[in-house]
Amino acid sequence: MRLDHIGIAVNSIEEALKTYQSGLGFSLADIVTIDHQKVRVAVMPLGEYSLELLEPTDPLSPIRKFLDKRGEGIHHLCFQVRNLAEKLQQLEGTSVQVLDAVPCRGLENRKVAFLHPKSTHGVLIEFVEEKQ
Amino acid sequence: MRLDHIGIAVNSIEEALKTYQSGLGFSLADIVTIDHQKVRVAVMPLGEYSLELLEPTDPLSPIRKFLDKRGEGIHHLCFQVRNLAEKLQQLEGTSVQVLDAVPCRGLENRKVAFLHPKSTHGVLIEFVEEKQ
Repeated sequence: MRLDHIGIAVNSIEEALKTYQSGLGFSLADIVTIDHQKVRVAVMPLGEYSLELLEPTDPLSPIRKFLDKRGEGIHHLCFQVRNLAEKLQQLEGTSVQVLDAVPCRGLENRKVAFLHPKSTHGVLIEFVEEKQ
Repeated sequence: MRLDHIGIAVNSIEEALKTYQSGLGFSLADIVTIDHQKVRVAVMPLGEYSLELLEPTDPLSPIRKFLDKRGEGIHHLCFQVRNLAEKLQQLEGTSVQVLDAVPCRGLENRKVAFLHPKSTHGVLIEFVEEKQ
């Protein structure tokens, strides 16, 4: 497994970029919107993985719910796996709970699935299938 | 800047390893104790960086305070910088607040400093000086 990205929930990408881009010196590659996930994403590459600033685009966005409950901060870690269906199957019968039994689609239409943070010591983990 | 490690606060390294090592398949390199930081650390390498499970060794440990307040979960992100003193100097006069004006010592006695999460959109960021 390799890290794909670290997702950080923020109220405003523009405000957060003042800190992350101008202050800390991370570079911005792109800002994209994933409509069905109700999220706008600023991608800051760091070698083979990236930091992603996540801003809700709708009151029903999961990121909005996270912000209301916990405030801004690290939202999730995403790891690449070779075969997502196989990885999820391996977790069946373990204490790790999969939130998306059927993988959904993330950035660049890649197959993704989340694990329940209650089953992973408080960390929301996303798996994404490696690019072919 | 490159990611050095992701720190995850847990109540018990042994319990968390059941999930992270046996369940999710991360490999364990070592478990070390940093006395002056009152923390026990399980290092799980992932290429050039690592996941670190952080367990408090004392009621006064900062990790204990985090667990009491937020529960288990991602505690901090650590990035490597070439020259820590220089990096901290660059941040003077910006909105980013440095918690350790004088760098302290982390794992392997490397120079480290933390930034205040209130100034970095809720993310506790650690800088560590690259190995010479």
